[in-house]
Amino acid sequence: MAQKRLGNQTVQLQNSPTIIATASIVGPKEGKGPLSSYFDKILEDDLCGEKSWELAESKMVKEAMQMAIDKTSYVMSNVDYIFAGDLLNQLMSTSFAVRDLKRPFFGLYGACSTMSESLSLASMIVDGGFSDLVIAGTSSHFCSAERQFRFPLEMGSQRPLTAQWTVTGSGCAVISSKGKGPKIRRITTGKVIDEGIKDPNNMGAAMAPAAVDTIRTYFEDTNDDIDSFDIIATGDLGKLGMDIAKEFLMKSGYDISKIYTDCGVEIFDSKKQDTHSGGSGCGCSAVTFCGYIYNKLINKEFNKVMLVSTGALLSPTSTLQKQSIPSIAHAVIIQND
Amino acid sequence: MAQKRLGNQTVQLQNSPTIIATASIVGPKEGKGPLSSYFDKILEDDLCGEKSWELAESKMVKEAMQMAIDKTSYVMSNVDYIFAGDLLNQLMSTSFAVRDLKRPFFGLYGACSTMSESLSLASMIVDGGFSDLVIAGTSSHFCSAERQFRFPLEMGSQRPLTAQWTVTGSGCAVISSKGKGPKIRRITTGKVIDEGIKDPNNMGAAMAPAAVDTIRTYFEDTNDDIDSFDIIATGDLGKLGMDIAKEFLMKSGYDISKIYTDCGVEIFDSKKQDTHSGGSGCGCSAVTFCGYIYNKLINKEFNKVMLVSTGALLSPTSTLQKQSIPSIAHAVIIQND
Repeated sequence: MAQKRLGNQTVQLQNSPTIIATASIVGPKEGKGPLSSYFDKILEDDLCGEKSWELAESKMVKEAMQMAIDKTSYVMSNVDYIFAGDLLNQLMSTSFAVRDLKRPFFGLYGACSTMSESLSLASMIVDGGFSDLVIAGTSSHFCSAERQFRFPLEMGSQRPLTAQWTVTGSGCAVISSKGKGPKIRRITTGKVIDEGIKDPNNMGAAMAPAAVDTIRTYFEDTNDDIDSFDIIATGDLGKLGMDIAKEFLMKSGYDISKIYTDCGVEIFDSKKQDTHSGGSGCGCSAVTFCGYIYNKLINKEFNKVMLVSTGALLSPTSTLQKQSIPSIAHAVIIQND
Repeated sequence: MAQKRLGNQTVQLQNSPTIIATASIVGPKEGKGPLSSYFDKILEDDLCGEKSWELAESKMVKEAMQMAIDKTSYVMSNVDYIFAGDLLNQLMSTSFAVRDLKRPFFGLYGACSTMSESLSLASMIVDGGFSDLVIAGTSSHFCSAERQFRFPLEMGSQRPLTAQWTVTGSGCAVISSKGKGPKIRRITTGKVIDEGIKDPNNMGAAMAPAAVDTIRTYFEDTNDDIDSFDIIATGDLGKLGMDIAKEFLMKSGYDISKIYTDCGVEIFDSKKQDTHSGGSGCGCSAVTFCGYIYNKLINKEFNKVMLVSTGALLSPTSTLQKQSIPSIAHAVIIQND
């Protein structure tokens, strides 16, 4: 039996992979939201001087990765691996960004679960002795996502109240085998869960069962104490999905309500900012973690955190073919010493 | 310094992750090609009883994974992680396939490099002590890829002679910390390389520099002897890309010509089968490795192999935006005891 396993889906890291730095860049709308003060950079416009939204997103990714490395004593050429991905078809923004960074790259797709997917793999690779320095990151962009997954922005489509607003932002973390910072302690990798939801405008409801499955599995695998956490943050279930997740967990005997939040709920003031059920997109949990949560970990306001980024693995093709929405959620447990 | 590193981009695995079984399923055209006798299953038609090509591809993935596990003494619930991905937007075929397998899943996107990307990550996770049993796999389907990346099949577009033919097929490997079979010894993870090629009908030329970079880096990192290999197989450069790679490597002082082949060249009889420069798609190196190469390793006809799956990280959007084609190649070195 592999030594590091706990229960069915969880691993315990033994060599303390450390998040030595993070960086977060967001769009103008996110920069007016409640987490504004936690971000490293707020763009003045969505195009950031590029010719397309896709290239703008790519520029954000590259800048966030460089910015995170610049906060450490390392340079980009010290990085052994980049683990990253985004929402665009064929990971356009990530592939174009890492082209200029000239480091070994593993492309990931987990829809909006990519932040915790990349943190999971990056920390296992460091913990396993394969590298001393790795970058994990992701991004999304409201305009590039909207036109790929939904309608041309120019149509001005009405959005139902269950819909979420794709975050424009990129967050990334630098993980090292040494140095100061919060440590990644445990990882619970999610299964693909599909409860038959078919409405692509209600992804919170589609993803909530995946979040519930992963959180419940973590506690079953480890017998850990819910009260030992300062915060459990799901990926981007939004207000509706968060309520569903809370209720389902309660019914399974896990009352996390005192310490539970959702990155999609935190990032926007949904009433003032007209974002309906909340934020979404890979960038949502990425900038909420790399900005807000990481900052609170560094300041010791939080000492033990569970980040559960959630992804809806639908595609426009699967929706047209009347398929339901498979979802996934990965949990990463991060702790100060 | 992490203990397992060799040079700049290579790691040495120390706990002998073993490929204990593989499975390969191909379409009717691939089943008429020169490697026909090495595949586990040849489909009678491209739809395999499903309503869409995407769902047919998904069915192939699920079947290949189950078939590979059935060749071992394990059952699917013993699998700790599935590492997989495909060419479709949002990994539709993989996400829908693994939904029914109910195992922890890491979604990968490396275009046609996904077979060696999944083998790399899967074997590092086993080597690092995080798991005793992991699946690595990928797929592609001519019809689903053609309509997503190029034109509706009904148009009957003419294909230039530099074009390749997307393989319909799924291949997957079961990797374990114990058991019999060839071992994964070393991994060289590729950087994204872009030499400015913009023609999406000439992906061999776009990907060749990535293959050259990774193969050259492997030999620089390890000082290994070219003659110790029985075969070096690149991903799917096709005939044109293979010639470019061979020439560029020769100019760098690495003459691999005696032991060099390309999965895209092996899989079709390009003259009789009208496949122009050869096969392509994630499934190309997947079924060539999981069928042909693995079989030769088991029979000791090959004892040391380098698989270098190559991916062109373009998207239809990036092509429309007149961008060049970023490419990547990952090398996995597999050896009998």
